[in-house]
Amino acid sequence: MFTLHQRLEGDTVEVADLRVSVVRLMRDRTLPWLILVPKREGVREVYDLSKDDRAVLMEEMTLASRVIDALYGPDKINIGALGNRVPQLHVHVIGRFETDRAWPGPVWGKDGSEPYTEDELCKAVHELKEAFKRISSGA
Amino acid sequence: MFTLHQRLEGDTVEVADLRVSVVRLMRDRTLPWLILVPKREGVREVYDLSKDDRAVLMEEMTLASRVIDALYGPDKINIGALGNRVPQLHVHVIGRFETDRAWPGPVWGKDGSEPYTEDELCKAVHELKEAFKRISSGA
Repeated sequence: MFTLHQRLEGDTVEVADLRVSVVRLMRDRTLPWLILVPKREGVREVYDLSKDDRAVLMEEMTLASRVIDALYGPDKINIGALGNRVPQLHVHVIGRFETDRAWPGPVWGKDGSEPYTEDELCKAVHELKEAFKRISSGA
Repeated sequence: MFTLHQRLEGDTVEVADLRVSVVRLMRDRTLPWLILVPKREGVREVYDLSKDDRAVLMEEMTLASRVIDALYGPDKINIGALGNRVPQLHVHVIGRFETDRAWPGPVWGKDGSEPYTEDELCKAVHELKEAFKRISSGA
């Protein structure tokens, strides 16, 4: 039984359900920010996953990076698994821009996030869902 | 031909030469901080690597995490591939402590690093080299 940590549940909204991870969009309109949460109970560190799950997670991180590139064209992708505040293993995949609110520093722990409007969130989730389908099928 | 970026060359010292990455220790005595650099020319993002290289890199990140756990017993491992300042793909694997200088925030971009003394660096490099040999062989 996999249960999403309540902080991740509150801060994000689901955009794709992959083999190992569920992919969720951070409720922050200032950056294209995805979070992959492996659907495994009690996993805190990457090495707590099986080797097979790790290999799949790596491909899912790659897919998420490609989706962000295709939709938003960032200057750089940032990937991170920190978990200092939320112990459930989760991997950030974030599109970064040389003009964004934290560049060139990391965005974690930085003030300045802004919620999407309802319309913006609806549009972003829809586009991300479509992009995950399109890009994961190689179309 | 693989050439290490000069900033990584200056900031770190080699502790292991693995199949895909070279592993280097950050010259910062305040944290056990390893950097894995895939030995591939012109690679900026994780998805620029081949799928096989990505799977091996994931296992090398796992190995580096286990080495840090075995030697330093941190409270959490932080893994990150940012590259906003240094474009050559490199993956940070850092042992974090609830008492460290940046907890619970990320350590990247945070002031407070301190160089090792010559003796400390020599000891740390030696212990890390031994631990990589021991743990990668499963001994």
